[in-house]
Parts: sequence; structure tokens; C-alpha cells
Amino acid sequence: MATTVVNPASTREKLLRARQASAKLAMLSTEEKNALLLATADAIEARSEEIIVANHQDMERSGLEGAMRDRLLLTTARIKEMAQGVRDVAALADPIGETLAEWTRPNGLRIRKVRVPLGVIGIIYESRPNVTVDTAVLALKTGNAIVLRGGKEAARSNQCLVEIIAAVPGVPEGAIELLDSSTRESVQELIQARGLVDVIIPRGGAELIAFVTKNSFVPVIETGAGNCHIFVDDSADFDMADQIVINAKTQRPSVCNAAEKLLVHERVAAEYIPRIAKKLIEAGVEVRGDEKSRSLAIGLKISPASDQDWYEEYLRLCMAVRVVANVDEAIAHINHYSTKHSDSIVTRDETNARKFLRGVDSAAVYWNASTRFTDGSEFGFGAEMGISTQKLHCRGPFALAELTSSKYEIVGTGQVR
Amino acid sequence: MATTVVNPASTREKLLRARQASAKLAMLSTEEKNALLLATADAIEARSEEIIVANHQDMERSGLEGAMRDRLLLTTARIKEMAQGVRDVAALADPIGETLAEWTRPNGLRIRKVRVPLGVIGIIYESRPNVTVDTAVLALKTGNAIVLRGGKEAARSNQCLVEIIAAVPGVPEGAIELLDSSTRESVQELIQARGLVDVIIPRGGAELIAFVTKNSFVPVIETGAGNCHIFVDDSADFDMADQIVINAKTQRPSVCNAAEKLLVHERVAAEYIPRIAKKLIEAGVEVRGDEKSRSLAIGLKISPASDQDWYEEYLRLCMAVRVVANVDEAIAHINHYSTKHSDSIVTRDETNARKFLRGVDSAAVYWNASTRFTDGSEFGFGAEMGISTQKLHCRGPFALAELTSSKYEIVGTGQVR
Repeated sequence: MATTVVNPASTREKLLRARQASAKLAMLSTEEKNALLLATADAIEARSEEIIVANHQDMERSGLEGAMRDRLLLTTARIKEMAQGVRDVAALADPIGETLAEWTRPNGLRIRKVRVPLGVIGIIYESRPNVTVDTAVLALKTGNAIVLRGGKEAARSNQCLVEIIAAVPGVPEGAIELLDSSTRESVQELIQARGLVDVIIPRGGAELIAFVTKNSFVPVIETGAGNCHIFVDDSADFDMADQIVINAKTQRPSVCNAAEKLLVHERVAAEYIPRIAKKLIEAGVEVRGDEKSRSLAIGLKISPASDQDWYEEYLRLCMAVRVVANVDEAIAHINHYSTKHSDSIVTRDETNARKFLRGVDSAAVYWNASTRFTDGSEFGFGAEMGISTQKLHCRGPFALAELTSSKYEIVGTGQVR
Repeated sequence: MATTVVNPASTREKLLRARQASAKLAMLSTEEKNALLLATADAIEARSEEIIVANHQDMERSGLEGAMRDRLLLTTARIKEMAQGVRDVAALADPIGETLAEWTRPNGLRIRKVRVPLGVIGIIYESRPNVTVDTAVLALKTGNAIVLRGGKEAARSNQCLVEIIAAVPGVPEGAIELLDSSTRESVQELIQARGLVDVIIPRGGAELIAFVTKNSFVPVIETGAGNCHIFVDDSADFDMADQIVINAKTQRPSVCNAAEKLLVHERVAAEYIPRIAKKLIEAGVEVRGDEKSRSLAIGLKISPASDQDWYEEYLRLCMAVRVVANVDEAIAHINHYSTKHSDSIVTRDETNARKFLRGVDSAAVYWNASTRFTDGSEFGFGAEMGISTQKLHCRGPFALAELTSSKYEIVGTGQVR
């Protein structure tokens, strides 16, 4: 059985090992990497009992309840899914080595821009142990070493999973390192390790992400927070709008691509707001509204929305409604208050739709569809590392290609300046 | 004549204006942006006397000497070149609006990944006033607002240039903002303005870059420092090696793509080191060396290199020489000590060359050419914003395309999950 003692190496030693491993990983062929992934999937299934025992220890100690407890739980079925996920990643195309551009200069220099691994990726995440495996295999597939700093609730599950992957024959020592989750020091050391770590990806709540982006010396890909909007234009098909609003708000309210705000064109507000507010309330949603919305929906329980409401990511069954003059005001409102994640317009008017698609400064902008589609699998990427809400490096759902960098290989015949 | 009084608006006000301008700039068509650039070029030429007067004031107050003084100087000829540079950028293709990928999902959702501006770009730089114009026009061309924090030596020149560009009819208010260069507070405010500024690009010395990367809350593109290597393999053509080494070291020793280190295969060290050391010394280069190199070049003045030497970017006529066992040791040395900028192998052996090109983890890796080619114009980009030595977002020389982000525009027919 896998030991659950925390690896006694220091954070610094682990980072140095990861750095050294990254050089070896970068030289592996696609076939070698895929063989490692398939062996990893087999090892996870073969050692599922150990995983379940380690996870059981986490569950007993965690004190978590409800949805949080369920996020921590690993079952035989979930472990099988995890292994299948690894096989799915093995089957994806390898971006490494791809020629991104190639040209010859007038002086004869031949320049090739080629895709290479980032090097060492640091992940800071919360309780779900499947993130350990998901992110490790995306890193291995792209020839990167990975340093994981998971939540303390999942410490034993993560330790067991990392040991299983690290023990797969051919995985270079240091390719996957797990940091101590019992103190915050390991986070501090990880995010300050500029030169050893090439990127930090925080996956978790808004507080964690804010802490990392503020304190990291290493470049960060900011993920997550979503204050998503739906704008119902005056020409909207109300039945379609109902479906999109109800789906985006209620299908899974705890996730970042769930809708939090509803904007309605003033020309249809009197008709549409009472209609949708009723449906939302029936679906168990707490509805808040600006003064105009509230005056239009007398008899329905709509509490007043404060200015803070327009900034807030509720992550629960709550939605704030506002009346806007037109598509321009909707765009201005969204660009002011949103987290630039996902926003949707429901309209029959192509001009307004094009204006909205171009004018809303968000990672994903929709016309006549639910914001819930902002997701790596829904986009067809076959995997997802996260959803970037920053503009540098990558934006929106990202997976394998975004775990790479590039370099220039230049071939000459003695050229000098 | 342009006033040289520092704009009294606070840094925060300027950043807010830039943010607002960025939304307007993002909506400009290619034709509109090019018209602004051509008008800018004309305005710079038409107002060259004002520029020269402002620059003269800077020159008198600066107390700078030699090369630094020359970097600050603007003449009629240099202003003409500057204006021509603006016209050259106008003539380049506009990356904004480009479709980067487009596909339809099985559920009928049509997804388009489109290139968009970054938003607001912050530049922190030192004394050269031409950087003001170069970076402002690259930002305008890509629909970005730009906030400039130049060096205090060039304060009046920069103020004059920024006023000229901002006064061009059609340039949105706030599109180009100049921060107070008399204190460090404006730097602090700029690099902590997460949410208002999308990227910070520091252009200057190693100390400036280190300060910005350590303290910025805004994503940074790290530019600059270059500890570049040339490895002379055992099968190298010595005449070619001589030319490359002398060119890379001496043609412009103060720049980041100049070579600082020479590695020589042990099999040819006895022959090649005395030969190249003599030529370097004749060219005025101070030569340092490891023990083996020094023992092979008795009679030549080679001082001992300390471990610190292998890390150092000299930026002057100084070069350290080391004997290595083979290409693998050369790669390992470079990956340990270099700044991942530019490195070159001189060899006739394709296997070793391919190993070096793949194994050296630097932005630009050369086979039989000088490291001095790592430059936007030499690569044929027509412009250059800087040379990135980090792996996130972009790596190596970067220009227009790298001043962009992307977004997803998704068109549906009522799809929900």
C-alpha cells in the first residue's frame, strides 16, 4: 500500500527536481509520452483500492459536509472515469514540436517557430483530488513537469495518486511533485520561485486567485471568477430567452459559467420581466432587481439590488435583473461590472448581435445560447486546464496548446550582421 | 509651441481615461487606425521644431554623457526617421479581427476565435524618446491604449511627443497617456493597477525589469537581459566561427543579443582557443577563461573567470571562454547559466546541431549564425516591441501580433445544456 507520509524533501528541493525533470520531459517523443499516459491509466485502475483507502482517511478527517464532501469522495466508478480521462488525453494530438511558422530571410537565414513545453507548471487548487490526475496528465502530455499544491482535505488522496503516477516506469524523477498542504509556506515558496517555475495556475475560489495574482513573482494564468450576464434584447424570442436564462442560472449554479445577471431591453421589460421573474422564483431562484424591474413586477418577490450586487458572483440560486435602454447600455454595463468571463445576448436582430459580440470585452460572448457552454469539453478540446479570465497568453477555456511556449530555431551558413 | 508643464491629472485619472479609450480604440477599423498613424507621422514632421526645442531642454538638464547622451538626442534627421517608422507601421497588416480558428460543434454552436486588442498596455522605459513614438504607434495600430512611464531625462521630449500624437484628430482622449517621471510613485501605481491595465512591458536595464516582475500585480512581459553563448563544436569551420564570434561579441556589445560567453569543444580547444583569444584581444575584448582555456593560451592575457562570470551579462567588450567535453555539456552549461535569450552552435555536424537547437532552452537558438539576429527587424517583423525572455504569452522578438489577445464569439440557435 502506498505510504501516506508526506515526502520529507523541502519545497525548494522539489522545485529543483521538477526543473531537472522538465529538461528530460521536453526531449520525450509523442510515442513515449503516450505510453507513459496509458501506463498511468492502468496503474490508477490497478491500484484503485489503495486510492480508496487513502481517500477514506481524508473523508474521515475532513469534517466536510454536503457538496464539498462529495467533491472529495473517490469511488471505484470515479476512479475508472479518472483512468478513462487519462486514456482520452493520450489519444489527443501532441502539440509539441509543431511548426507554428517558417520563413527564409533575404540573407538566407531560415527561421522556424516551433512549439515547445513551458517547462515547470505550478498548480494551486482546492479539495477535488481528480484535479491532481487531470492536471498531471495534461502536463505530461505536453512535456512539462508539474508541481502540485492541493488542499489539505485531500492530502492523502493526492499523495497516493502522485505516488502512483511518479512510480510509472519511465516517468522522470521530479516530473510530478506534491507540496506540503499543511501550511501556507509551500504556496509562498512556489509562487516566488521565478526561474524555477514558468507559470502558476490557481484553481479555486476568488480569494485564492486574488492572493496568487497579487503575490506571485512567477507569471500567472488567472482562472475562474465569472459574473456572467444575459441580455434580452427587444427582438428576443421570449421562449428561447426563458430557456437560456433558466438553464444558465439553474442548471449548475455553483460554477463560473452560470449566469448571475439578467439585463432586459426597456421596450420589452414590462412584458418580459414579470414573466421571467415568475419562472425564476418557481425554479427556486432568489430574484433581486433595480427599481424599474421591481416596479414592473409588483406582486412578485423581488428584493432591491445594491450597486455591490452588479459586481457579485453569487455562485448560488440568486439572480439580479436590470432594465437597460438598449444594446449599447447593455454592453457598457457588462464591460463595467463583469469579470470578462461569459456573456450572452438573446435577440433576433443581427446588427445588435454583431455589436454585442464585438463590443463585450469577455472571453466568451454568445448570441442565442447559454453561457454554460464556456468549458473545454463543450468547446471540443477533449480536456480542460481551466478558464482564463486574463488576456495574456490565453483567454477562455484552455487545455493542451496553452500549456506550451515557442522558440525560434534559426539555421544559417555563417551569417553575421 | 507645446507646453512642457506636466499634465496635472493623477496617475489614477490617466489610467481610467486609458481604460475608456481602449473600448473606443477596439472598435476602430483598420482604415481608421492607419489614417491616424499617417496623420501622426505628418504631425511629427510638421512639429519637429517643437520637438527639438523640448529635447534641447532635456539635453541641457540631463547631465548625461557619451552613449547615454547620444541616446537622448533628437535631430531633424532622427525625427524624420521616427516619422518614417510610423508610416512603416501603418503599412503593416492589422492583426485585429483575424479569425484564429472557427468550428461548429455537434449541437450546432458555431465557435469563432478572433484576435482582439489587449486593452491597455503599460510601458516603463528609460531615456530614449524614440521609444515613446515606437511603442505608441504599435499600440494604436493594434487598437490598444498605451500608458507610458519614461525616464526623467527625456521628460520634456516625451511630453512634447505625446502631446503631438494625442492632438491628432480622431485619436480618442486617453489613448496615449504619459505618467509623471519625476517620482517612482507613478511606476508603483501603474504596476498595481490590475483591472485597469492588461499588460506591463518593462524596457530597460536588468534592475528595472527585476523590480517590475517582482512587484507587478498586472501580467508582465519580461524583456531583455541576454547572457548569450556561442558553442564552437569540434567539427566547426574555424573561419566561420571566427566571424560569428567576433561579430556577436564586438559589433554592438551594449545590446542584449551580443554574445558574452564562448564554449569550445575540448577536442579543438588547443587549436581554437589561442586563435580566437588572439583575435578577440586584437579587437579590444577583455578575455576571461576557465583554467583549461587559460592553460591553452599561455602568453595571451586571459584573466580567470569566476563562477559569477558564467551568469553575467557584460554588455561591454568582455568575453569568458570555457572548454566543454561535447555538445551535451555545452547544452547543460547554457541551460544552467543563460538568461534563455539567444545561443548559437557553430558546427558541420547536423546531428549535434539538431541536438543543440532542440536541447537549448532559449528564445532563439542558432546553427551557424550570429546571435545578433535576434531582433524584430532582422526577423522581418517590420517593427519590434521588445524581446521576451519569458515563456508565457510570447517568446523572443515580438511586435504587433503579440500585442493582441483573443476572444470566442459563439453563435447559437437557443442551445442550452
